[in-house]
Amino acid sequence: MKAITQINEFKEGADIRGFFLCVEKHLRNTRGGDLYLDLVLRDRTGQITAKLWKEVSEYHDKFSAGDAVVVAGQVDVYLDKLQLNIKKINVATVQSYGRYGYDPALIVPSAKSDAKQMWKELIIYIKKINNKYLKMLVTSVYKEHKSKLLTYPASVVMHHNYRSGLLEHTLSMAQLGTSLSEHYKVDTDLLMTGILLHDIGKVREITSELEASYSDEGNLIGHIVLGRDIAIKAASQIKKFPPDLLIKIEHLILSHKGQYDWQSPKKPKFKEALLLHLIDNMDAKMNLMEKAIEEDIEEGKWTSRRNYFRIPILKDELTNEDDGSK
Amino acid sequence: MKAITQINEFKEGADIRGFFLCVEKHLRNTRGGDLYLDLVLRDRTGQITAKLWKEVSEYHDKFSAGDAVVVAGQVDVYLDKLQLNIKKINVATVQSYGRYGYDPALIVPSAKSDAKQMWKELIIYIKKINNKYLKMLVTSVYKEHKSKLLTYPASVVMHHNYRSGLLEHTLSMAQLGTSLSEHYKVDTDLLMTGILLHDIGKVREITSELEASYSDEGNLIGHIVLGRDIAIKAASQIKKFPPDLLIKIEHLILSHKGQYDWQSPKKPKFKEALLLHLIDNMDAKMNLMEKAIEEDIEEGKWTSRRNYFRIPILKDELTNEDDGSK
Amino acid sequence: MKAITQINEFKEGADIRGFFLCVEKHLRNTRGGDLYLDLVLRDRTGQITAKLWKEVSEYHDKFSAGDAVVVAGQVDVYLDKLQLNIKKINVATVQSYGRYGYDPALIVPSAKSDAKQMWKELIIYIKKINNKYLKMLVTSVYKEHKSKLLTYPASVVMHHNYRSGLLEHTLSMAQLGTSLSEHYKVDTDLLMTGILLHDIGKVREITSELEASYSDEGNLIGHIVLGRDIAIKAASQIKKFPPDLLIKIEHLILSHKGQYDWQSPKKPKFKEALLLHLIDNMDAKMNLMEKAIEEDIEEGKWTSRRNYFRIPILKDELTNEDDGSK
Amino acid sequence: MKAITQINEFKEGADIRGFFLCVEKHLRNTRGGDLYLDLVLRDRTGQITAKLWKEVSEYHDKFSAGDAVVVAGQVDVYLDKLQLNIKKINVATVQSYGRYGYDPALIVPSAKSDAKQMWKELIIYIKKINNKYLKMLVTSVYKEHKSKLLTYPASVVMHHNYRSGLLEHTLSMAQLGTSLSEHYKVDTDLLMTGILLHDIGKVREITSELEASYSDEGNLIGHIVLGRDIAIKAASQIKKFPPDLLIKIEHLILSHKGQYDWQSPKKPKFKEALLLHLIDNMDAKMNLMEKAIEEDIEEGKWTSRRNYFRIPILKDELTNEDDGSK
Amino acid sequence: MKAITQINEFKEGADIRGFFLCVEKHLRNTRGGDLYLDLVLRDRTGQITAKLWKEVSEYHDKFSAGDAVVVAGQVDVYLDKLQLNIKKINVATVQSYGRYGYDPALIVPSAKSDAKQMWKELIIYIKKINNKYLKMLVTSVYKEHKSKLLTYPASVVMHHNYRSGLLEHTLSMAQLGTSLSEHYKVDTDLLMTGILLHDIGKVREITSELEASYSDEGNLIGHIVLGRDIAIKAASQIKKFPPDLLIKIEHLILSHKGQYDWQSPKKPKFKEALLLHLIDNMDAKMNLMEKAIEEDIEEGKWTSRRNYFRIPILKDELTNEDDGSK
Amino acid sequence: MKAITQINEFKEGADIRGFFLCVEKHLRNTRGGDLYLDLVLRDRTGQITAKLWKEVSEYHDKFSAGDAVVVAGQVDVYLDKLQLNIKKINVATVQSYGRYGYDPALIVPSAKSDAKQMWKELIIYIKKINNKYLKMLVTSVYKEHKSKLLTYPASVVMHHNYRSGLLEHTLSMAQLGTSLSEHYKVDTDLLMTGILLHDIGKVREITSELEASYSDEGNLIGHIVLGRDIAIKAASQIKKFPPDLLIKIEHLILSHKGQYDWQSPKKPKFKEALLLHLIDNMDAKMNLMEKAIEEDIEEGKWTSRRNYFRIPILKDELTNEDDGSK
Repeated sequence: MKAITQINEFKEGADIRGFFLCVEKHLRNTRGGDLYLDLVLRDRTGQITAKLWKEVSEYHDKFSAGDAVVVAGQVDVYLDKLQLNIKKINVATVQSYGRYGYDPALIVPSAKSDAKQMWKELIIYIKKINNKYLKMLVTSVYKEHKSKLLTYPASVVMHHNYRSGLLEHTLSMAQLGTSLSEHYKVDTDLLMTGILLHDIGKVREITSELEASYSDEGNLIGHIVLGRDIAIKAASQIKKFPPDLLIKIEHLILSHKGQYDWQSPKKPKFKEALLLHLIDNMDAKMNLMEKAIEEDIEEGKWTSRRNYFRIPILKDELTNEDDGSK
Repeated sequence: MKAITQINEFKEGADIRGFFLCVEKHLRNTRGGDLYLDLVLRDRTGQITAKLWKEVSEYHDKFSAGDAVVVAGQVDVYLDKLQLNIKKINVATVQSYGRYGYDPALIVPSAKSDAKQMWKELIIYIKKINNKYLKMLVTSVYKEHKSKLLTYPASVVMHHNYRSGLLEHTLSMAQLGTSLSEHYKVDTDLLMTGILLHDIGKVREITSELEASYSDEGNLIGHIVLGRDIAIKAASQIKKFPPDLLIKIEHLILSHKGQYDWQSPKKPKFKEALLLHLIDNMDAKMNLMEKAIEEDIEEGKWTSRRNYFRIPILKDELTNEDDGSK
Repeated sequence: MKAITQINEFKEGADIRGFFLCVEKHLRNTRGGDLYLDLVLRDRTGQITAKLWKEVSEYHDKFSAGDAVVVAGQVDVYLDKLQLNIKKINVATVQSYGRYGYDPALIVPSAKSDAKQMWKELIIYIKKINNKYLKMLVTSVYKEHKSKLLTYPASVVMHHNYRSGLLEHTLSMAQLGTSLSEHYKVDTDLLMTGILLHDIGKVREITSELEASYSDEGNLIGHIVLGRDIAIKAASQIKKFPPDLLIKIEHLILSHKGQYDWQSPKKPKFKEALLLHLIDNMDAKMNLMEKAIEEDIEEGKWTSRRNYFRIPILKDELTNEDDGSK
Repeated sequence: MKAITQINEFKEGADIRGFFLCVEKHLRNTRGGDLYLDLVLRDRTGQITAKLWKEVSEYHDKFSAGDAVVVAGQVDVYLDKLQLNIKKINVATVQSYGRYGYDPALIVPSAKSDAKQMWKELIIYIKKINNKYLKMLVTSVYKEHKSKLLTYPASVVMHHNYRSGLLEHTLSMAQLGTSLSEHYKVDTDLLMTGILLHDIGKVREITSELEASYSDEGNLIGHIVLGRDIAIKAASQIKKFPPDLLIKIEHLILSHKGQYDWQSPKKPKFKEALLLHLIDNMDAKMNLMEKAIEEDIEEGKWTSRRNYFRIPILKDELTNEDDGSK
Repeated sequence: MKAITQINEFKEGADIRGFFLCVEKHLRNTRGGDLYLDLVLRDRTGQITAKLWKEVSEYHDKFSAGDAVVVAGQVDVYLDKLQLNIKKINVATVQSYGRYGYDPALIVPSAKSDAKQMWKELIIYIKKINNKYLKMLVTSVYKEHKSKLLTYPASVVMHHNYRSGLLEHTLSMAQLGTSLSEHYKVDTDLLMTGILLHDIGKVREITSELEASYSDEGNLIGHIVLGRDIAIKAASQIKKFPPDLLIKIEHLILSHKGQYDWQSPKKPKFKEALLLHLIDNMDAKMNLMEKAIEEDIEEGKWTSRRNYFRIPILKDELTNEDDGSK
Repeated sequence: MKAITQINEFKEGADIRGFFLCVEKHLRNTRGGDLYLDLVLRDRTGQITAKLWKEVSEYHDKFSAGDAVVVAGQVDVYLDKLQLNIKKINVATVQSYGRYGYDPALIVPSAKSDAKQMWKELIIYIKKINNKYLKMLVTSVYKEHKSKLLTYPASVVMHHNYRSGLLEHTLSMAQLGTSLSEHYKVDTDLLMTGILLHDIGKVREITSELEASYSDEGNLIGHIVLGRDIAIKAASQIKKFPPDLLIKIEHLILSHKGQYDWQSPKKPKFKEALLLHLIDNMDAKMNLMEKAIEEDIEEGKWTSRRNYFRIPILKDELTNEDDGSK
């Protein structure tokens, strides 16, 4: 089978085959009255408009906007821009096209580390929780939501907003949790449980593996309150789960954003809650600066101001001179 | 039995008997080394310090700060101020002292209308709900929390912060609900359910009948999220309660404060939710202005700036001249 | 005479006749040096560019940007978009073209109810005012500004910003006024006068019937202060108008926006003023949510965030299942 | 007649005579049931409590709180503090006691310069206005309000809040007006008129010569809108006053506070209005820093943070060393 | 040699010669695979796209984006817009092309007054400083940074953001300094030194004569702190410069923006510092309003809201009627 | 010699000897005209007023407010409160009274760990810096300011505001620095240098070992800018210190408060600067919550709202039940 071509490798006249996210799909009429499909396709390397002129109604039924698609077609130029003339198109899933090279990571931005590897590491942190109730609680939540935890982003438009971003963010915080809890002499089990569960509501707030958007209950309830629901439900299935421990877990989840105008219905009211918020904030901000640098397209060593921080960020070294580091 | 004397009627030398809230209670030593009780007592009319010099340890065990107490004693003057020398003191409850005239309304500020009468009126509003699920929901919640609903304030320090204030506030909103929902063509059943349940979490957020303070779960979870819990639990016991209806009720409760910095984890996202917030805001603000006027102690027609609005409020008519109203 | 065609019904090649708002008008030169008119036309259904190639200078004198125009022409396609080739164009007024079907409501967004009907209903509210001075005051103001009150919007870009929006907004508030004033035990005559006059300054702040914009005195003085002027002037012509009553009316108008950063030079300082502000706020917010839903063009049940509230608003039912409402 | 003694010169046992502001006045009962007057007196140098024990009802009718009083009495000590036993007391006015040394400047803080001298200087600025309409306008306003302009403060609690402070503030701005208007090439007559009239509404917003407080129309309308009224009324009596000029004067007054949250219903929209605001702001801030330094009672070269700026202000030179200035 | 043609004089078909700022420069491939240069050129009168088709690689080496260039070419039309076909292009400097008419003021916006004239005037202000240390300090700083002071803007995007804007802004403030310092009875030498040095850090914060942008140390340290460095370094070379005087100069520079959120690390803590801030603010705001009026392209007497003040500004007279000014 | 008695152990009639901070000192006259000293003394356990009646002028010269003093006297009661009658008083220093038990930690709050021990630990962190320039820089700064670093607080009124608080805060951050810099893959040497130097300006901003207050340059320049001065000066004495490295250190110090309104003239613009700010913020907030809990005097498990966070903080366990932790 032909090799996969990514959008940034497209050249006028080339026959290509590839996997893309169908971002927009419209059934339109030509001036002559014939139907055609007007699409926007995207992969990790770029975005292109595409047209499908033949067997339109047949292909129309095969896929929807939001789907991953496998496409064969030819690149041409229209109004000074490259455009793809589609010959064949179909939905792509890992089941059907994995062996032909399809991987969601081709078409949507993903975490740098392997999701399964990150999962394994997180499981080890769970096993280290000493408090039997907390260990049971986290274990049962992670077991139930494993498939979503493996792929979900940590947010729709903010920090870690890419495939497996939620896993990456949680793991990053867990890696910091033990040493910080010991440093500030707080309850390590409580802090780690807070870290592992603080964003669990995202699995209900966000929908879709490929293009993240908000679910109805995400819009109406929000991940903070939904995450507390998940913790409460799991605790209710653990015999004799201490109520005072549960209420602390609830507060950890409800207060982790740290301030009301970030939709936290409570501010942190004990040390573990404050520390959880501070670690979450640290990890989010560090990720946002990394993203600001990676996504910037300005020339020179400074990014533009169009990033979370609204200031230019230094991308490179100021110079390459000897600075004593060797 | 002797008549009840209120604090604002105390005169030097008088023997009095009365019911008070014991606001502070300290066991102290005289310079001579003897024990005595140093108290602060309060009723609806004022506040006074009180001392108990005899049989101290015996009386010490009989009551605590925060209790309603029945007291007999004599008024004297110390350092230019009236003070009460207590001869007898005991806890007062409606059970034990109701027949001698004790009524919590004597010692704490209360709503102007009778709680039972307001309750009856609210029940009528519940019966008018057409949607069978919503009627069952509100009925079951009100049945379960009746005793607290009869006496709780609507807040600890803000609007309607007096005995039965929650009932008064809810009833006031319910009285407006039908006409406003028809005016703005929204779902009356949904709005009325929102009105009746929006502050229900107060019954768990606040403790004590007499001096309101925050419970542990009030501090850590808050009435907004706790109120949603109460609604969810009640709905779970109603067969086939429609999930889409429940999620709307949840949103009504979660968003009723209207903005994040008032601890609302969501802003109103459909018309009934927005209208609920606006009615709640209207009723709270009107009550706060009424309180500002009633509690002000300045001479003249303007209050001081020490009120919720931070501006002088007009207390009286500008003049008494003919203004065309007769 | 030919039927009127609205912009959303235009088809390539069709000969059309219609009424439009001329939004832009430029006299330009073709590369060949000939004059032509380059226009943008709009009606309630959409917007289109238009060209006029012949008898240019003659037609040029007949109308200006901002005018309502009657147009005959042919639809063609230019650069992939529909465009109108104008054959005849003239100013349209109700006087000259009303009998041919011209109605300003065809070309600008308008209130849903009929202006004359709303006016009649408002007059009834005025007649219900008991205080003779207040009734005279409102009557005289409404009499003087009747023609503008019938057509003006309530704002240029915010709530009720469409033809007769001011009337619709005032009527909506008046419909609520009596019951709310009784509920909160305030002076009904005073509140109703406040409702009827609070935005009267708009008739001087805003210019033009069709495209609303700010007048010079709107820019330099503003409707809040201008509205007070109108009330003062009308009162000065009423014999023995009580000065204390007038100052209250002035305050009602000056404080109705409720907070300084909405350009209110005073915050409400008595109950009627506070309630007026709260009703105004309620009516504006409910209208803004309705507009957010109507104007949204997103697919699905949620609007985009591009609305007054900066959040997605729920447009439809979550599902169509049985929800107990039948 | 005996010399006047100021409060900071009082000594135990001394017989004194003096003029004071009666800040508080209460008619009370001794424990023995006799009436006495309990007063607080103040002059420029301090404050003291005073008692009057004899002929109480007779003296009670002679003066009220807020009056300037002439007092004879004896200083004694009560509860470790000086106190005045009053023998005689009466209202003091310039008419009745001026020849005995009474001057309001003795009992309330006053501007440093002489009010009449400042008035003369202001009149010269008015005469320099070239535009005949503006000169007539300012002249007529100043003529009408001369007596209040001579004594009023510029505010109740903020900048220039002392006797003749309004005059001092206006004169200070007028002294800057000509050079600044020439520098920024704006209309000098317009700017000077704005300077001279911007705070004229204070004569209606504030009441009382001695203790400033807000009038009813000050509370309900405010000096900004009232000042515009004064200007409009005066202009209406000038034949052919150009309407476009008047609307600019109105805007100058309405926008001079510069921002909405300082109760300006408009922000400055032309250069003279912006410059007026900037000069007003400069003069107020410079006065506030001067007051912060003068009123501070901390030892050392830094004031406390309890001033308008909420930061320590440098009161003295850092050191006395040679710094090149000689 | 041919006359210089400015962009707003370009006509289709004309051969032109001119000086421009090369704003963008991209080396691209035609569809046929040939190289061409795709440029954006700008001068004081406008902006145009330009193409260079021949001897591409040779010309490519001669200039960069950001350079001033001298260009010969022919105007044609592409996609309905004028475009320049370049025949010759080269870097333009005052040295090489000054005698052919090149002046940076042709291609970038500049102060209205002549830089050398403004410099001379500033020198006179420096000479008037009485304190010998301060005079030496300012003299040495101005001597060292003369070339940049002659051409630098006062900011990149805000007030006085054009060639020699820094000089213009400083001179404008200096012209006000003496009279304001005398009026407010502050130390004139100190204030004038503050005026002359407050923005001196701009010479290190900003780079490039033509298109202003931030230097590395501008981004990382900022002109406020860099300006203090310049003052300290200059003072360190003056024998016996009084340390208490220096620390005041430092504070003047550090606090001149007046508030923390404008990146002032200190608020003004003595009178000269406060007055410096107020003059700086006045001069910046007056310039911003002038720019808002000059740069506005709306028809009519009001600007759009797209300016620093976010409100419409009055550009013209309201009318041309007799307003008493003649 | 007699044992030291702390203020909270004082009893009426007791003869005591102790070390105190003299917080206030006033020379006053008795009514009889004799001089006496009126003092306020404080130690770690409380505060008391004290009087000295004999040999007043002799003792008056021996000490000042702000001094540590050694006192002998007798406790009596005045106006219902304990008071100390001083017999002997003198300044206490470690040199003169260390062997009699004087330790500054007796009279002012101090860090929990030993300052010398913390210093040793910090030196180890300095030695671990690999970059030779940075190691030299930090070493030289710490060597120069050792004595102040051992005792200074980290702030006057905020976090770590006690003896050796600066050392404690810096060490706490250094302990976190290595693992966090590795976690976020930033330059460890740069981050550690930032941690060790970020608050170094405090040694010039704050004065006095016992009662911290602001120095003149603290008030006028501030520790952020002064800290950068210290770093620049130290770097200037290191041969070939790379300028690009220095500018980064400068930025680390200037931006460590993270936002303008906390007086940071720059926001963090590269990763190490952002991480430094986040660690500083974390350590300050955790300390503030610890202080809020320790300093609270409310009964029950919740603190009052009078703390940095303005919310109640949970001080104790909710209950003592089995919570799975054993």
